[in-house]
Amino acid sequence: MKFSNLFHIKPVYAHCDLPCGVYDPVQAQVEAKSIKAILTKYPDLDDHNKQRAVLIKEERAELVKHHLMVLWADYFKPEHLEKYPQLHDMFWKAIKQASECKHHLEVEEADKLLAQINEIAEIFVETRK
Amino acid sequence: MKFSNLFHIKPVYAHCDLPCGVYDPVQAQVEAKSIKAILTKYPDLDDHNKQRAVLIKEERAELVKHHLMVLWADYFKPEHLEKYPQLHDMFWKAIKQASECKHHLEVEEADKLLAQINEIAEIFVETRK
Amino acid sequence: MKFSNLFHIKPVYAHCDLPCGVYDPVQAQVEAKSIKAILTKYPDLDDHNKQRAVLIKEERAELVKHHLMVLWADYFKPEHLEKYPQLHDMFWKAIKQASECKHHLEVEEADKLLAQINEIAEIFVETRK
Amino acid sequence: MKFSNLFHIKPVYAHCDLPCGVYDPVQAQVEAKSIKAILTKYPDLDDHNKQRAVLIKEERAELVKHHLMVLWADYFKPEHLEKYPQLHDMFWKAIKQASECKHHLEVEEADKLLAQINEIAEIFVETRK
Amino acid sequence: MKFSNLFHIKPVYAHCDLPCGVYDPVQAQVEAKSIKAILTKYPDLDDHNKQRAVLIKEERAELVKHHLMVLWADYFKPEHLEKYPQLHDMFWKAIKQASECKHHLEVEEADKLLAQINEIAEIFVETRK
Amino acid sequence: MKFSNLFHIKPVYAHCDLPCGVYDPVQAQVEAKSIKAILTKYPDLDDHNKQRAVLIKEERAELVKHHLMVLWADYFKPEHLEKYPQLHDMFWKAIKQASECKHHLEVEEADKLLAQINEIAEIFVETRK
Repeated sequence: MKFSNLFHIKPVYAHCDLPCGVYDPVQAQVEAKSIKAILTKYPDLDDHNKQRAVLIKEERAELVKHHLMVLWADYFKPEHLEKYPQLHDMFWKAIKQASECKHHLEVEEADKLLAQINEIAEIFVETRK
Repeated sequence: MKFSNLFHIKPVYAHCDLPCGVYDPVQAQVEAKSIKAILTKYPDLDDHNKQRAVLIKEERAELVKHHLMVLWADYFKPEHLEKYPQLHDMFWKAIKQASECKHHLEVEEADKLLAQINEIAEIFVETRK
Repeated sequence: MKFSNLFHIKPVYAHCDLPCGVYDPVQAQVEAKSIKAILTKYPDLDDHNKQRAVLIKEERAELVKHHLMVLWADYFKPEHLEKYPQLHDMFWKAIKQASECKHHLEVEEADKLLAQINEIAEIFVETRK
Repeated sequence: MKFSNLFHIKPVYAHCDLPCGVYDPVQAQVEAKSIKAILTKYPDLDDHNKQRAVLIKEERAELVKHHLMVLWADYFKPEHLEKYPQLHDMFWKAIKQASECKHHLEVEEADKLLAQINEIAEIFVETRK
Repeated sequence: MKFSNLFHIKPVYAHCDLPCGVYDPVQAQVEAKSIKAILTKYPDLDDHNKQRAVLIKEERAELVKHHLMVLWADYFKPEHLEKYPQLHDMFWKAIKQASECKHHLEVEEADKLLAQINEIAEIFVETRK
Repeated sequence: MKFSNLFHIKPVYAHCDLPCGVYDPVQAQVEAKSIKAILTKYPDLDDHNKQRAVLIKEERAELVKHHLMVLWADYFKPEHLEKYPQLHDMFWKAIKQASECKHHLEVEEADKLLAQINEIAEIFVETRK
């Protein structure tokens, strides 16, 4: 199932810590796509914009980490963990992968990150049914 | 056409100022939905959480304003303005409406904001075709 | 001479979203002048400080964009737009020019930005009379 | 073993994502102690400062969440997880407890949070030996 | 009258830590004026906007503290201290007064803060001659 | 007396502006140690991570400046100044040294900063007895 199909099912979201109940993996996805776009453009940038790319990538990866932590610790409940015991590890690895995107310049790092977020998003969608 | 259908067409996004080319009105929408959820829950909250709701709402509305400015000034180009001369005014009013969501506690304010963002999103989607 | 005389004519300002009513284009101007100063010093900096200059310039330009959005959407009212119909476009272009200051290293980009902010400031002052 | 004794053993730290290698649970502890102090003072504050307390508590709890995520995802490595398989759950619950400190006004919530951070700190110290 | 004439005498500024050399006490003044405006409006606000006023005041006072620290530690040099040995104490008290503006709701607190910043600004202007 | 021994004496802290009463020089120390670690690793990093190091160092130094200002202006009271009249100058120089850590790449700059913070911490500990 392609990710872009996931959101046909029903509107899914949630993210502040009132909590407002609005959570959406799309927040992490948008930032991760931004990282991928930055890394894709990187080789053709001039030196000045290469430097800018590095600092923007750093910021975007930090946002991915934040949005994933919010989903993990604010949205998911013990009953979800029972059904999806791999969740802790999935988030841990995805957040670590966001750090890898800080440390590296290869587009593949962003692809891995996107794939990991998409897997989380699929479980998220399952839990919203 | 309902908004939730808009994103079936094709993935749409863009938002950092490299620019990475990834823009997505969904960022403003998620925050606006959060404001609506906060205002919907508000009457039933205890005093302490009512105070928290006010400060979180303030923060979310600020994010809406930021995300809208990014779309308006970073994504949209002169050729879009030519085709959609109402764009400036639409953004101006939507950003002003985000401020109204700060100033008020009625769910209707969030509904208006969401409607305005959705209209912007429809034009956005048109321009991505 | 007392400092309070420095800002002659009459106090002009406004910027938080209570709204407190204190708005002042000087906030955008200070940041834009900082960008100009950074770009002027840039050629003579060592490599390490050149990198620092790029990241500080990025931050300052972001602040210009923010302060301009606040003036545009929080301070200006429909009656101003009626009298100065060019306002939307002036802000749009000035905010886009702040992005140009992120993308480029030429002092001329900061000069253009400053000129655009000054034009906005003149209208602002007119409206405060 | 009392927590205040933990740091006699050897200096422990680390927290940016270069990574610089400097991590220290004391960052989360300072913020959690601040939450406890705020909640302890809360009943005797006037209404204005009660409101301020709520917003400062919100901010401090967010910092706890951030510092814990950094420790969890940046410092801890697979070999630590193997030795301390309970780590994922400990962090998840501590971060959730930081949210509880946002939602509530009882000092006990801060005590629970501090106890959870201290348990994490003990494992952290073990891994630095 | 052109806006660029408003700031007479000579351009005064400086504030980033490249350093760019652009410093201006007006940054602290704008925020302090905002605090005064907030406190002046406070008694007539409804409960919801009173709560908002408190959080915005908190944020503005924090900005005052930040801008003052920048002036004190980045702009002023040992030769200034020699000529104005009272500078350390003036800044210390002004920053403490910004905290008082957080703790209190009386307009007088903002007046004191403004007076202290203006005294600093006078010395600043002296040193720019 | 070595710094690492200072904290055996008794738990020391304080830092928000409720004020909560929890202040701790360890916050500035952790960031300064991070700067030292970054500068120590710097020569062996690849170009991409050298750029990242510069921006992270910038951020860490800013945090040092912030934490020192908080200690100086929020924690220390007139009676402390009377007993330790050198305090103003110690803080001023330490904050200036944090800026030096932004401007330079030599580990010695971080060492100087750490030494200055440690001297402040010793006085801080004295005042908590």
